Amino acid sequence: MEYSRQTERWGVQEIVLQGPAEGNPFTEQWIRGTFAGPGQNNVKVNGFYDGDGIYKVRFMPSYEGEYSFRIEASFLPETQEGSFTVTPAGEGNHGPVRVAYTYHFAYEDGTMYYPVGTTCYVWELQSEAVQKETLAELAKGYFNKIRFCVFPKHYIYNFHEPSSYPYEGTPVDTTGMNKKNFHSYSMEDKGNHWDFYRFNPAHFRHIEECILELQKLGIEADLIVMHPYDRWGFSHMQPDQDDLYWNYVVNRFSAYRNVWWSFANEWDLLRDKTVADWERYAEIVVQNDHVQHLRSIHNCHTLYDYSKPWITHCCIQRQPDVMPVEMTNQWRDKYRKPIVIDELCYEGNINNAWGCISGQEMTRRFWEITMRGGYAGHGETFVHPQDILWWSHGGKLHGESPERLRFLKKILEELPEGGLQFAGRRLAVNQRRMPGNTWVHLQYLGKSTPSFLEYSFEEGQYHVEVIDTWNMTIEDKGVFGPEFTINLPGREYMAVRITKMG
Amino acid sequence: MEYSRQTERWGVQEIVLQGPAEGNPFTEQWIRGTFAGPGQNNVKVNGFYDGDGIYKVRFMPSYEGEYSFRIEASFLPETQEGSFTVTPAGEGNHGPVRVAYTYHFAYEDGTMYYPVGTTCYVWELQSEAVQKETLAELAKGYFNKIRFCVFPKHYIYNFHEPSSYPYEGTPVDTTGMNKKNFHSYSMEDKGNHWDFYRFNPAHFRHIEECILELQKLGIEADLIVMHPYDRWGFSHMQPDQDDLYWNYVVNRFSAYRNVWWSFANEWDLLRDKTVADWERYAEIVVQNDHVQHLRSIHNCHTLYDYSKPWITHCCIQRQPDVMPVEMTNQWRDKYRKPIVIDELCYEGNINNAWGCISGQEMTRRFWEITMRGGYAGHGETFVHPQDILWWSHGGKLHGESPERLRFLKKILEELPEGGLQFAGRRLAVNQRRMPGNTWVHLQYLGKSTPSFLEYSFEEGQYHVEVIDTWNMTIEDKGVFGPEFTINLPGREYMAVRITKMG
Repeated sequence: MEYSRQTERWGVQEIVLQGPAEGNPFTEQWIRGTFAGPGQNNVKVNGFYDGDGIYKVRFMPSYEGEYSFRIEASFLPETQEGSFTVTPAGEGNHGPVRVAYTYHFAYEDGTMYYPVGTTCYVWELQSEAVQKETLAELAKGYFNKIRFCVFPKHYIYNFHEPSSYPYEGTPVDTTGMNKKNFHSYSMEDKGNHWDFYRFNPAHFRHIEECILELQKLGIEADLIVMHPYDRWGFSHMQPDQDDLYWNYVVNRFSAYRNVWWSFANEWDLLRDKTVADWERYAEIVVQNDHVQHLRSIHNCHTLYDYSKPWITHCCIQRQPDVMPVEMTNQWRDKYRKPIVIDELCYEGNINNAWGCISGQEMTRRFWEITMRGGYAGHGETFVHPQDILWWSHGGKLHGESPERLRFLKKILEELPEGGLQFAGRRLAVNQRRMPGNTWVHLQYLGKSTPSFLEYSFEEGQYHVEVIDTWNMTIEDKGVFGPEFTINLPGREYMAVRITKMG
Repeated sequence: MEYSRQTERWGVQEIVLQGPAEGNPFTEQWIRGTFAGPGQNNVKVNGFYDGDGIYKVRFMPSYEGEYSFRIEASFLPETQEGSFTVTPAGEGNHGPVRVAYTYHFAYEDGTMYYPVGTTCYVWELQSEAVQKETLAELAKGYFNKIRFCVFPKHYIYNFHEPSSYPYEGTPVDTTGMNKKNFHSYSMEDKGNHWDFYRFNPAHFRHIEECILELQKLGIEADLIVMHPYDRWGFSHMQPDQDDLYWNYVVNRFSAYRNVWWSFANEWDLLRDKTVADWERYAEIVVQNDHVQHLRSIHNCHTLYDYSKPWITHCCIQRQPDVMPVEMTNQWRDKYRKPIVIDELCYEGNINNAWGCISGQEMTRRFWEITMRGGYAGHGETFVHPQDILWWSHGGKLHGESPERLRFLKKILEELPEGGLQFAGRRLAVNQRRMPGNTWVHLQYLGKSTPSFLEYSFEEGQYHVEVIDTWNMTIEDKGVFGPEFTINLPGREYMAVRITKMG
């Protein structure tokens, strides 16, 4: 048994044991750890088989101090025990993200977390060079969340083989597949053979490396566990195979603090799966994820019932005929959970209606949704000579929105600590009351182009800044008395930040 | 008795009689005509008192040929009779507008009518100079419908006295009224005295002159009969006074072919009036309007029940938190009547959220709503040194949308005659099947910025044009076979017009 004598708070304690490699260790063996420390007692954590006779149990400690544990396994004649010290969280480590103030998020250490996400469905399964490009782009700090899939993706612009597969087997031969027939491309024959009881540990290890790379960049890994874009049969497994997969995913990834569970992308397109199936997967995750990471499920046409107690927040794809912006409030009122509109069309110029909005419109939707008390997700789909589209592959960003979204993120992160209160208004207002009877009032004007605005507040001094959300400028207008008029340029996409001074 | 021996089809036959001027002729006398001609028999039309002992009965003949009539009146000892010839409609005279194809409009002669409207609430009650400016702007052909009020308007930017009042009396003294107190400005005192039983015929005669001026320009007069922006008490009359007013309006204006009845602007802000009141007014109009002009009623917060049979089409103000564009389809499905979104915010730069969208956004909303099978209304509210804002006063237009709306109107009017069919699609499509198995397909891309689009039609030749709805250009792409790809500039606000050739 090997493990570290010291682990950072919200870091990963990994306990490694040797065990049998013969037979099918994935189905014939089991391993479990039980952990105890200050504030945590009897925390049971299932381990997993990592290939080559190696078994692992991973645990994320929630508190500082002395922890002890014991390991039981099908192949161990007796329980093994150990202990380790949990040191304070290092710089940039705020713990896992939780729901806060009903509609919002905060890290476990209390720092507010304002999601400004992106989607690169299978960036981690591209060539090494493209993966490096992706991480280099992400290092620029545009986003603090990224959605991506555990399974490879088969879809338009996504025909090449992934860098690895999650199972032992051989993929379908794609000779003759093209843009016209890929939708109905059969996986029943053409060399498509997989053992859904034998995982390929290298595939999952690589995802873990990616999760850690993202963690270093301060980015949450919103893992899409199932999706329908498939030519190999991963979306058509039997219930016992599905359950084996969900357990394996949870047992491997739960200890990484920056993981979120996105149960599916477009759950309603996974025609084999019933709501009962999704509820069974939820049971597996709720019972086995010792960190209780955030959980949601993403739709195509039909929203999942987000009132289910296992769902921590709504992860919504916009409905085709309804603007996501305007629905944000209604969904908030309906579900009383954070609203993350993780797909609101992508910035780009492909011929699909979901993949061709401008950077300006992307930025507008982000601001509108955020100011209405929801959160939004970015994606990018520009035609590319090698079909490398950020939305699926990562690579380089080509659009105009990322730096504007980083600007938005900065504005949000500048909001002072304290009780958070978003208040929907005719002109969307995000008002946050702070200690000492001071507050910050952030008002996004969006498509409104007033040449002036009038304000009337209670007695006091007010510092006014005019923000151009598109040109990314902040103009200091000065300090005003309780009643005042602010001149504005009469352009779209302006915001006003008013700080009541102490 | 005086009248013309000859009237144009859908023109006005006006029969003028002398009668008593003493007492109160508005309430104490009545006059009625009964008309007969080819296809019309026993059409009863109430007349009205026009002051100075003059009584009038106005009739709009629907057919060509010989008409006869008789006049009865409270002051006539015996019925008077007459006859006249109805000649063919003159150039530009297509008759009144009717509902066509469930969701659309056509003139009575069968010519399609595609509303591209504007709103100038009380343009006809401004100075003569401003009225002339308004008519000069309207003569440029931007719009084919205008909404305006019979009563004067009291509201922000609308403090000065109108050029005339609908009743005999004296207006409230506005000394001391300002932007802050005008909302609760009392009309109970300060010289506000009106006789709600004695109309000022000059006020109504002037409106008739304006209706005729608009008619010459091919513009429909969408008359707003009641509204809540009032400091004189015209929105707080008693039921018998209301009924007298509705009868007077209908009896005076019905014979003008280009009149539409907009029962109210923001009906739900007329707090005195109940739904039963509106239904009673509807009964008056339905029973007395011998032309059966189009009828609707405009909302603030709450839509009127547009399923009422007297309502010919929906005249909707956008709901604050819901985009009018996306609701067009839902309202169509719900009411199965034409949807006219007559207020969707105004192009301008005032500080009210409803009065500060860009010309680009105005144009986009028009196209989107139109391509989804509805119709839209323009308005303009730019800050002006003399507070002359198009939305209320007319005057000069300052915005960027009017010439784009004229361009849209032209595109619509170029659609060939024949069965009309709008088909909602992901990318909005307006497809119109024509005789000879040809058709025109008009597709608006709005916020979508594809760099190409792929088409696959049945065997045939297709003429493709790419329309830039903002820059008002039409690029001829040539003629293509049944499967083809069209390159696009990847900009917003493009449209594609495809004509299947015969």
